[in-house]
Amino acid sequence: MPHFITHSPRVRVSPFYAATVADGVVSFSTYNHMLMPTGYGDPVAEYERLTNGVSMWDVAVERQVEIRGPDAARLVQVLAPRKLDLLREGVGWYVPLCDHRGVLINDPVLLKHADDRYWLSIADCDVKLWCQAIAAERGFDVEVFEPDVSPLAIQGPRAEDVVAALLGDEIRAIRHFHFRSMNLDGIPLVVARSGWSKQGGFELYLMDGVRGEALWQRVKTAGAPFDIGPGCPNTVERIESGLLSFGGDTDHQTNPFEVGLGRYVDLDAPDDVIGIEALRRISSEGVARQRLGVFIDSENHLGYDDGYCDVAVDGEVIGRITAQVYSERLKSNIGIGLVSTSVAVGDAVTLVYADGRQLPARLTALPFI
Amino acid sequence: MPHFITHSPRVRVSPFYAATVADGVVSFSTYNHMLMPTGYGDPVAEYERLTNGVSMWDVAVERQVEIRGPDAARLVQVLAPRKLDLLREGVGWYVPLCDHRGVLINDPVLLKHADDRYWLSIADCDVKLWCQAIAAERGFDVEVFEPDVSPLAIQGPRAEDVVAALLGDEIRAIRHFHFRSMNLDGIPLVVARSGWSKQGGFELYLMDGVRGEALWQRVKTAGAPFDIGPGCPNTVERIESGLLSFGGDTDHQTNPFEVGLGRYVDLDAPDDVIGIEALRRISSEGVARQRLGVFIDSENHLGYDDGYCDVAVDGEVIGRITAQVYSERLKSNIGIGLVSTSVAVGDAVTLVYADGRQLPARLTALPFI
Repeated sequence: MPHFITHSPRVRVSPFYAATVADGVVSFSTYNHMLMPTGYGDPVAEYERLTNGVSMWDVAVERQVEIRGPDAARLVQVLAPRKLDLLREGVGWYVPLCDHRGVLINDPVLLKHADDRYWLSIADCDVKLWCQAIAAERGFDVEVFEPDVSPLAIQGPRAEDVVAALLGDEIRAIRHFHFRSMNLDGIPLVVARSGWSKQGGFELYLMDGVRGEALWQRVKTAGAPFDIGPGCPNTVERIESGLLSFGGDTDHQTNPFEVGLGRYVDLDAPDDVIGIEALRRISSEGVARQRLGVFIDSENHLGYDDGYCDVAVDGEVIGRITAQVYSERLKSNIGIGLVSTSVAVGDAVTLVYADGRQLPARLTALPFI
Repeated sequence: MPHFITHSPRVRVSPFYAATVADGVVSFSTYNHMLMPTGYGDPVAEYERLTNGVSMWDVAVERQVEIRGPDAARLVQVLAPRKLDLLREGVGWYVPLCDHRGVLINDPVLLKHADDRYWLSIADCDVKLWCQAIAAERGFDVEVFEPDVSPLAIQGPRAEDVVAALLGDEIRAIRHFHFRSMNLDGIPLVVARSGWSKQGGFELYLMDGVRGEALWQRVKTAGAPFDIGPGCPNTVERIESGLLSFGGDTDHQTNPFEVGLGRYVDLDAPDDVIGIEALRRISSEGVARQRLGVFIDSENHLGYDDGYCDVAVDGEVIGRITAQVYSERLKSNIGIGLVSTSVAVGDAVTLVYADGRQLPARLTALPFI
């Protein structure tokens, strides 16, 4: 039995909200204290557009934490356990933010606008509070704030054609995770080749919240010849692709090495980087958990509503599945979870649900496809 | 057109979730990364129970940040711009948490369990990150974590009778904002006289998440002779009562003095308290905004779905309404907002909505009743 979502002044709407309602959004989640569209009523068509055509997403919930001022570069280096000296203007890097114990607290993309201006393009938690606390306690000369910036993602194999139709062929030269400032007939944008899918595409960071309706309609018009349609971060595609959902796939103990982000940690980062000592120790001692996929043997199509479940071997709980879904492409229920390093790809396990159900499953590597 | 809420592993469910579904919850919001019930389908009955009878609420979303260790008292004093030397064990104080600029970042109740153990019972934002950052940067010897604690509120004029039936007459001696540890046939509780209404009542802090169903049923049974029924933090009652909704009624510039929390700030708190210098300056210079109510002249019954609106005088925007609702008791649409100190109670103003609608209104003091 589905439930309704209540409007509340605590939960903001996106600049694209009215457009998504007009285009038939049927459900929302929340993310960074905002409403995030989660479906337009036809999951099969939405998946098809994303994987074989092109899809447009209101992902304004992907908020920016802007760090600006003379000490901006010092602050971001302290926040990120990655050596940032090679990060150039106009490029974004994926950075696992950790606390002083090496526990993952967010997994943003860090966009460098200039030596004194950066954005952290964040997942779902109040990173701004963290950055403000660190900046003030270390006496850095920076401002930390949320700018008026709202991404609209264009994702799928035909995304580049749509963005070229909208903004010109010059965008074809933008490399993965690179970005540039552009102007669409007075609508200020930062255009990046990025997005939360493995299907390729762009994110248009709208720099003026009152132009949301205008941008949405321009994208829709430019995309019409390519059969663009509305979509959202896609549960099936993201599980197939093994993308990490911070806060869903992670818990209050997760470190970057457990969830495959070790390659974004530089153990020789400066000693004043938050968490670096702990990360060196964890790296040297090794982790006790690993992120893997599972093929789940069930006649029913599973989904988030089925809830978390434990992963057991010989009656002993050795991990937890954090997301599961039926994949039409793989003709199987699949899931993602954190399991003990005592098991390995190929092992048979049992999933144990809160309601007592048990399902057989088999561990597999990520991504699925 | 109402929209559905999507389940997501990022948004946890409460220990009382299954019980609320069984009791007919129809809608949710989210709060502290959890689902929060917002209605059971009969708003008139829910308001009536709260104001004239007794109501039981799943408010597990009111999470605790536990601060434990030898430096716990030092940390909470640094976090709170209130002199805490007189806070005794077994008592909670309302504390406006501020950042280094004196901007409000949460308005928790601080519960003192012992000199080395406190809870911040928080509103909707990631206070734990803030506390962890400050503790680590200042080198305090504390642990900061979210314990397994989930409040169930019993609110309304008959709440005391229900809690006495459940836990014995000794609870009648608990004073406002005082609390004690109790045990209900093996269900561990902290019982406080508190709650987010002005109707009186208790909060049962469940200390073991697996006992949610058991506690809900025990409360329901004990409350049956008093016609208890399910409810939630009530939009109409909270606006009538002038309760602050952090994140809804506040913005990224709000200081405690603007929203009537100046009486919870001690300007002679120690100099190392975060934000105290800024708060002294703001207090001495005076504020530019104030929190007031409005009576809104409209034939339609207004609600959150009508959105924020500007408050204008002679065509000039002098503030913003952050919540509005129709009050059956007052036979009027009413709202809460932040307006310039250039206007005063009794002044006529115009509300200007994003869609161009304009409504006449009159400023009034809070609470309404």
